[in-house]
Amino acid sequence: MSLIENLQWRYATKKMNGAKVPQEKLDYILEAARLAPSSSGLQPYKIIVISDKALLEKIKVIANNQSQITDCSHLLVFAAWDEYTDEKVSRVFNYIMDERNLPRTTMSDYKKIILNLYATEGKEWEAHHAAKQSYIAFAMAIAAAAEQKVDATPMEGFNSKALDELLKLTGSGYKSSVILTLGYRDEEKDWLLNMKKVRTPKSDFITETTMADAGNQRLYNEIRG
Amino acid sequence: MSLIENLQWRYATKKMNGAKVPQEKLDYILEAARLAPSSSGLQPYKIIVISDKALLEKIKVIANNQSQITDCSHLLVFAAWDEYTDEKVSRVFNYIMDERNLPRTTMSDYKKIILNLYATEGKEWEAHHAAKQSYIAFAMAIAAAAEQKVDATPMEGFNSKALDELLKLTGSGYKSSVILTLGYRDEEKDWLLNMKKVRTPKSDFITETTMADAGNQRLYNEIRG
Repeated sequence: MSLIENLQWRYATKKMNGAKVPQEKLDYILEAARLAPSSSGLQPYKIIVISDKALLEKIKVIANNQSQITDCSHLLVFAAWDEYTDEKVSRVFNYIMDERNLPRTTMSDYKKIILNLYATEGKEWEAHHAAKQSYIAFAMAIAAAAEQKVDATPMEGFNSKALDELLKLTGSGYKSSVILTLGYRDEEKDWLLNMKKVRTPKSDFITETTMADAGNQRLYNEIRG
Repeated sequence: MSLIENLQWRYATKKMNGAKVPQEKLDYILEAARLAPSSSGLQPYKIIVISDKALLEKIKVIANNQSQITDCSHLLVFAAWDEYTDEKVSRVFNYIMDERNLPRTTMSDYKKIILNLYATEGKEWEAHHAAKQSYIAFAMAIAAAAEQKVDATPMEGFNSKALDELLKLTGSGYKSSVILTLGYRDEEKDWLLNMKKVRTPKSDFITETTMADAGNQRLYNEIRG
């Protein structure tokens, strides 16, 4: 099946049946996330995989008691850098240069440029920036799960500070950005399963623009309505 | 080809040859982005498609003069809401309820909850939040392009304020979040084409954790090094 067919098949599963996702499917999903592109190739995030039921019970409490947290097979916690530092960036760039048999100094100037650029935006912006990169990997995991016919629920409804405390992320240089449950839909109990998938109509979602348009007001407030 | 094979095939194309991406491939890529999930299904973003060379020349200047901007076939500008308002959210939720033949009031309480929640975080947070959602659609477009064997360059290196001015987004309720060029690689002139693709090793990228681990320090600073 094509990516579009997979995206049409998937939905934000609200009720899972507790069945286990096989290790090779889990590995596939994680590998797709690992291969995701990121700004400057920094991959300023990692994934924490949780299937321990006792831990999932604790997480459920800080995630609005959503049942998928404990009915899933695995929970993926995407954790992004809380800031960009010379040390963090250097580690990645040095690794890339080593893998490409290039001198480590190759990216020194570039490193200074981006660190300076990011610093002017401030720490909070840096955390958002790193989290945005993690959303690309998050999306690849969603697409990979659909390809593997594994159900998934992309979730933001959790207390990230409490989750960081629970997972001992606080002070580690990482902050949880978004979570994804993996498992299998409960076909009888999931209220969302038979609801129509609704997306912004193409005509509102996509605007083509030209030099001439850039001079007029056509782009103003073009959301559906 | 599988998603993973497509992700291995793709790379951030640095030099494109100017060849045109056929309309049906462009439509496929945009449709994948349109089908991307987003928080509460709000899709707080849209895509502006640009192929007008005169406009691309202007954008190139505010994007560090990167050649892909003018050598590409199409440039996709992802533009996200600059804030969440009752009006914006109501439009989307009303549309979803209409499409599902449910009363418009069905999501009223939920709407209040998220608007209150977001408001406590502030406008800047809201803009980042909407931009994060656009990164999911951005990732789907990247995956779709790779599936179609269309090259793409995910790009953040542009002056978003200047781009917003140029595209008359300023004051429209949208802000450019990220851009993607679509086209075809220049096999002779692209320095990155034959470079090894480097990603964080799996052992550093993925951490499995349990209730027992959550009580120790194992998650601290586990980045490569």
